[in-house]
Amino acid sequence: MKNFLDKDFLLSTKTAKELFHKYASKKPIADYHCHLNSKEVAQDRQFENINQMWLEGDHYKWRQMRSNGIEEKYITGNAPPREKFQKWVETLERAIGNPLYHWSHLELRRYFDYKGILNSETAQEVWDLCNRKLKERSMSARGIIKQSGVKVICTTDDPIDTLEWHKKIKEDKSFDVQVIPAWRPDKALNIEQPIFTDYINRLSKASDINIVSFTDFKGAFKKRLEFFISLGCRATDHAIEYITYVPASEKEVETIFEKKLKGNALTKEEELKYKTAFMIFAGQEYHKNDLVMELHYGCKRNNNTLAFDKLGPDIGYDCINNFAPSAQIVDFLNALNSTEQLPKTIIFSLNPNDNAAIGTILGCFQNASALSKIQQGSAWWFNDHKVGMIDQLTSLANLGILSNFVGMLTDSRSFLSYARHEYFRRILCNLIGEWVENGEYPYDIKMLSRIIEDISYDNAVRYFKFDI
Amino acid sequence: MKNFLDKDFLLSTKTAKELFHKYASKKPIADYHCHLNSKEVAQDRQFENINQMWLEGDHYKWRQMRSNGIEEKYITGNAPPREKFQKWVETLERAIGNPLYHWSHLELRRYFDYKGILNSETAQEVWDLCNRKLKERSMSARGIIKQSGVKVICTTDDPIDTLEWHKKIKEDKSFDVQVIPAWRPDKALNIEQPIFTDYINRLSKASDINIVSFTDFKGAFKKRLEFFISLGCRATDHAIEYITYVPASEKEVETIFEKKLKGNALTKEEELKYKTAFMIFAGQEYHKNDLVMELHYGCKRNNNTLAFDKLGPDIGYDCINNFAPSAQIVDFLNALNSTEQLPKTIIFSLNPNDNAAIGTILGCFQNASALSKIQQGSAWWFNDHKVGMIDQLTSLANLGILSNFVGMLTDSRSFLSYARHEYFRRILCNLIGEWVENGEYPYDIKMLSRIIEDISYDNAVRYFKFDI
Amino acid sequence: MKNFLDKDFLLSTKTAKELFHKYASKKPIADYHCHLNSKEVAQDRQFENINQMWLEGDHYKWRQMRSNGIEEKYITGNAPPREKFQKWVETLERAIGNPLYHWSHLELRRYFDYKGILNSETAQEVWDLCNRKLKERSMSARGIIKQSGVKVICTTDDPIDTLEWHKKIKEDKSFDVQVIPAWRPDKALNIEQPIFTDYINRLSKASDINIVSFTDFKGAFKKRLEFFISLGCRATDHAIEYITYVPASEKEVETIFEKKLKGNALTKEEELKYKTAFMIFAGQEYHKNDLVMELHYGCKRNNNTLAFDKLGPDIGYDCINNFAPSAQIVDFLNALNSTEQLPKTIIFSLNPNDNAAIGTILGCFQNASALSKIQQGSAWWFNDHKVGMIDQLTSLANLGILSNFVGMLTDSRSFLSYARHEYFRRILCNLIGEWVENGEYPYDIKMLSRIIEDISYDNAVRYFKFDI
Repeated sequence: MKNFLDKDFLLSTKTAKELFHKYASKKPIADYHCHLNSKEVAQDRQFENINQMWLEGDHYKWRQMRSNGIEEKYITGNAPPREKFQKWVETLERAIGNPLYHWSHLELRRYFDYKGILNSETAQEVWDLCNRKLKERSMSARGIIKQSGVKVICTTDDPIDTLEWHKKIKEDKSFDVQVIPAWRPDKALNIEQPIFTDYINRLSKASDINIVSFTDFKGAFKKRLEFFISLGCRATDHAIEYITYVPASEKEVETIFEKKLKGNALTKEEELKYKTAFMIFAGQEYHKNDLVMELHYGCKRNNNTLAFDKLGPDIGYDCINNFAPSAQIVDFLNALNSTEQLPKTIIFSLNPNDNAAIGTILGCFQNASALSKIQQGSAWWFNDHKVGMIDQLTSLANLGILSNFVGMLTDSRSFLSYARHEYFRRILCNLIGEWVENGEYPYDIKMLSRIIEDISYDNAVRYFKFDI
Repeated sequence: MKNFLDKDFLLSTKTAKELFHKYASKKPIADYHCHLNSKEVAQDRQFENINQMWLEGDHYKWRQMRSNGIEEKYITGNAPPREKFQKWVETLERAIGNPLYHWSHLELRRYFDYKGILNSETAQEVWDLCNRKLKERSMSARGIIKQSGVKVICTTDDPIDTLEWHKKIKEDKSFDVQVIPAWRPDKALNIEQPIFTDYINRLSKASDINIVSFTDFKGAFKKRLEFFISLGCRATDHAIEYITYVPASEKEVETIFEKKLKGNALTKEEELKYKTAFMIFAGQEYHKNDLVMELHYGCKRNNNTLAFDKLGPDIGYDCINNFAPSAQIVDFLNALNSTEQLPKTIIFSLNPNDNAAIGTILGCFQNASALSKIQQGSAWWFNDHKVGMIDQLTSLANLGILSNFVGMLTDSRSFLSYARHEYFRRILCNLIGEWVENGEYPYDIKMLSRIIEDISYDNAVRYFKFDI
Repeated sequence: MKNFLDKDFLLSTKTAKELFHKYASKKPIADYHCHLNSKEVAQDRQFENINQMWLEGDHYKWRQMRSNGIEEKYITGNAPPREKFQKWVETLERAIGNPLYHWSHLELRRYFDYKGILNSETAQEVWDLCNRKLKERSMSARGIIKQSGVKVICTTDDPIDTLEWHKKIKEDKSFDVQVIPAWRPDKALNIEQPIFTDYINRLSKASDINIVSFTDFKGAFKKRLEFFISLGCRATDHAIEYITYVPASEKEVETIFEKKLKGNALTKEEELKYKTAFMIFAGQEYHKNDLVMELHYGCKRNNNTLAFDKLGPDIGYDCINNFAPSAQIVDFLNALNSTEQLPKTIIFSLNPNDNAAIGTILGCFQNASALSKIQQGSAWWFNDHKVGMIDQLTSLANLGILSNFVGMLTDSRSFLSYARHEYFRRILCNLIGEWVENGEYPYDIKMLSRIIEDISYDNAVRYFKFDI
């Protein structure tokens, strides 16, 4: 029996151990997609207690607590931090097989040097240890980033964001990690939402362009995008319920846009036509500016109306939407490709059943402009567990060139989540180690180490063209 | 090489063996969903031969025989029992990798003390042995239930059932296993079926309420449900092709209901509106009465018209329906939740691809009213094999709190099927044992044994509030 | 650590090794579905270099090269063969975990006796070795077929094909491998395609029947099918985007057919009605003639318009279509079955998620007319890798009788691809060996060897009724 989470955690062969300890663990992190708060980095936030770090904004943990029958006051409510922590620990010790069990213990080991097991009996000990440790300078937002070996961070930002904190971080010569914005124009895409018109007004102000037509909108989009690029933006991101391809004439799209701005409700078909036009336009702009287009789809959000009315979005009430016609995804990409305006694209589905379809879609648009120009994103959100990662890596290897994969994204609001890169790399090294030890790939350490280093870090730097 | 089906069958680690032999195997069975015949329990049926037990009503086995090219006369026809048995054995020996191979041998070992291999050469020996053994008192319906350690059985019953046998069993003090009805109103849901109107008439009689409107129907539903509850009912069950959410006004639903009773055909939209209204109403009643709502979906039934016309339903001609929009499932649950009337719910899909979507839907409605109030049901019907169970358990662990899982259901017409609980528990113990031995969860036997005992039995008793 | 691709490649237990080396490896090949060129067999083509064999027509490899950022001139363009080969090798060495890595090395070992690793450093050595070897008589098209142990080959042919090369091969007494045509009438099915009318004209000529109605078309279909049967045809094949069931009256279908011939565009509904009528008619004819109907669905083709305009179809730009309603598949089969005209049928989906649904559909139509009359085809195209094969075999074992499976198809344009049968058999033997060594099936070598031999070869011969 292996000890719980020892130095060879998840590494079951000699080759796996060699690949991880000698190569993967030594590479820095290119965090090309996360939800860290740029203000907290700029101000170098120091946390008061482990509850702030772990439970202040993590809907993964909140969901688990609710699944364990914990009352909401201990989750998003007003219970004292120590009590909330206790309820979390009582949940965690029951969460056998869940990635949070591994992540939490990895974080305790790597950042707090705690080697024990967190459970209801050790909760007080851990609480004390963590909170003492959190007083140290090395445990500030920046401290954690530095000790995690992060070289570049792409935050996720709305087009109307002033990016003031990004500017401050850039100007601050005492911090050499790049923190650059990523462009996420979801609110401009979601024309069916009640807030759309209000958002367009705010975009008018931010861009200093009076938006009364789709043409105006495109102007504002471009202007803001240029601003993002001026601050180093390399990546864009779209959260889409499902990728659609319902083409329409320019005139139709103008009519739909104006209809909405006048306060009229749109039909489903009009909504999809607008979204298609929007995404085609956006893709073309990304191509022109050599930006990476990330497409995250397969999520139906805010499904608990009672909770949404009390707490708002992003509080743990989302689920997989299993409607995602692969035919429309490939038609959408083909439309961009047909005019030679398809940007580098990373496709993520929240539905693990989409792995194979995505793997076959990638192959339809690869060309010599990049190593695996079209990528499948790593196992995301509900899938970023051991099985999810193995399945995504295996599918990618079966259908494409795994060696060219840009690898793990953090996708987190928490500074401690860099431990997820270690988790991913262990799983990657174990999978490849298994193939080698099973005689399915030669033990050629020169090639193997290059593959591991590429997937861990080098591919992402090359692909996004980070200036490091 | 391990011997076939030895005492450590499916248990590959020391921890797995400890968990199974010391804990899982010692727990009783709470059979919260099966299709046992209450009359056979009440009358304590004694079987004449193994063919009656195995082949009289088991469409799992019939399908396999047809797949092996066996003529129908040996399956549902008039061939002599011994010949039917021979044909079954000739099929079984070819069924490598099939759960029936394991179940059948488990049943032979546990109930008939047969330690050999059943194949065409040993068929006569097994036939003789079983039929001799079946004469013993301990091998009556009740005898098997008792020796299987069953504490409570929920049969599946139509609202118009008189439940006379349940009453008799309850009154019979010589039998201390609870046999309680579960409420399955499928015939009242399926308004598109030719038999609907006739069924409503029978429900009128059973409830003594003249049903000419949906309002009347609701009255009859409530009255019969009260009757079921008076006999201990804790669970309800719905077999649904796919879960739908097409809301309509009360008036619309009344119109649809009356239209149907007048003998008119309904449109698909009307059908879905009625079904939505029905399920919302039913869910509210279950919530009010603290009953568990089981939703079994993803099945398209009676697909072989030739065979249906000869033999009727439930004879082995069903398949997975892969149309099941997760968006509508979550909208349906949200509609109930929005008025705080969502009952405890267990979701089963016949399509194993739905595991992940279901796992994320659960998390949208958990709260402090129960430990994992919304559950994913165990691998069901076409999925109750090793891989299906491992996948369901792993998915549940990844997305929720596996420790709170209510565990295995028998879902069988056969008294011997309690062996499936052993099968499930071995797989469960092996999976958890593997995690522990692989360093993914600590070897904390106090917590591990509690988790195993909870999933094997205790969670179900708590969740359904069985009065044991 | 096992050596890369040694004699026990993919065989991890003693039982697996015994089953493969003693039984599976000794069986001939019944190649019931491939895309070999009958002219090349008739003329006994001798290849000039390995580039011709590997890269002239293999879109699997082309896709991988594009994924590795290789320029098109090295793929389908005019670069010199040696340079193309180098680019392929540079791709292959990065293709860790991809089946091409295994297939390519298996081919090098079995046909070229090369025991090393192919990579950028050994490329010249391999190039020289292969090209020297290709000059030998044993390396002609027929030579490779003979040394692969192939007994029968079903090519894939259009109804208008003259089958002149099949005749020549049949008449040539110096070659004793049967090369028989398989019937693939896709162009007659795809009424929505621009080439449809032209194709019908060509079919008119080929059949000497003037086709102006669907009735005429059926006559031509039958006449050509008879011709195919006269040359030994046993199998038919349909490449379908998705299987549909939209029944229509004969009159409606006639109207649709005539509308199309007059140059009018059809609605989607008309297209689906025609396709349904076509497939029902085709199935009936296959049943009458005791031919096997192969249904390959789940593929959306030619998704890169830019590339299609330059290079045409079948050049590596296809993907999985994940729209495939199981309800329509089963309704289609039921329609044929209802009149007792359902032929033996093999169902292949390109979407691995369909495994379970297909497995349950099979069971709805099995009867005593054949051993597993309705089959699930082996893991196909994008799925013919280790995981894909294991998943298909396991699913089939869980839901049907694996022992009756007709096994692997080559589905290739390359004569070297017979190595894929070895790949498949190793995986099969390993899976079954694992079950046996894990105590899930008895070590009964008589039964095990029969199962292995059946799946490797004997089942296919019996099922297709090859006259060998």
